[in-house]
Amino acid sequence: MLDHRDRLDRLFHALADGTRRDVVERLVRGPASVSELASAHAMTLQAVMQHVKVLETCGLVRTEKVGRVRTCALRPEGLRLAEDWLSARRTGWERRLDRLGELLEPDS
Amino acid sequence: MLDHRDRLDRLFHALADGTRRDVVERLVRGPASVSELASAHAMTLQAVMQHVKVLETCGLVRTEKVGRVRTCALRPEGLRLAEDWLSARRTGWERRLDRLGELLEPDS
Repeated sequence: MLDHRDRLDRLFHALADGTRRDVVERLVRGPASVSELASAHAMTLQAVMQHVKVLETCGLVRTEKVGRVRTCALRPEGLRLAEDWLSARRTGWERRLDRLGELLEPDS
Repeated sequence: MLDHRDRLDRLFHALADGTRRDVVERLVRGPASVSELASAHAMTLQAVMQHVKVLETCGLVRTEKVGRVRTCALRPEGLRLAEDWLSARRTGWERRLDRLGELLEPDS
């Protein structure tokens, strides 16, 4: 079981690659097989599988194999974890600006 | 000038390190000198400078040197770029779920 810090490390690492972000964008529209992902990105099955593995390890994607077909689906809770970290920092920053504003213009 | 895709690569790479996220969290509360960051994280000045460099290159931090003191400040537009990418994917996913719901229960 990964702790929160390790999960964020892996999530942001997974998202730091344009091809992996493209796979996430494709899966937003619904599940896809590994071969569909490969043909959409003009990549070998092996190259796609490596990216899918990274996305699976960090919790952004789950896969299921039925017969010879491995299907990938998005796990939106992974996106949410990364988004929550960023939005908490942004709101922290905005609160600080509000407090500065109040200090500079106490009567407004 | 980096294009949008390269900027996202660098932003998510920068955020994939817990120490760099700690630096961002610290700078949400206001600017800090490199030596303040070093003492807060029990790191050498050199190690902090390496992290600050990564944060500066991706546009999350700006630094200014006055005399012997280099001060770091957050650039919130970097946080927003990464957050916007994630929230667009999440809302795309939610819209898809809504459409699925309408297809499954057309009268509700």
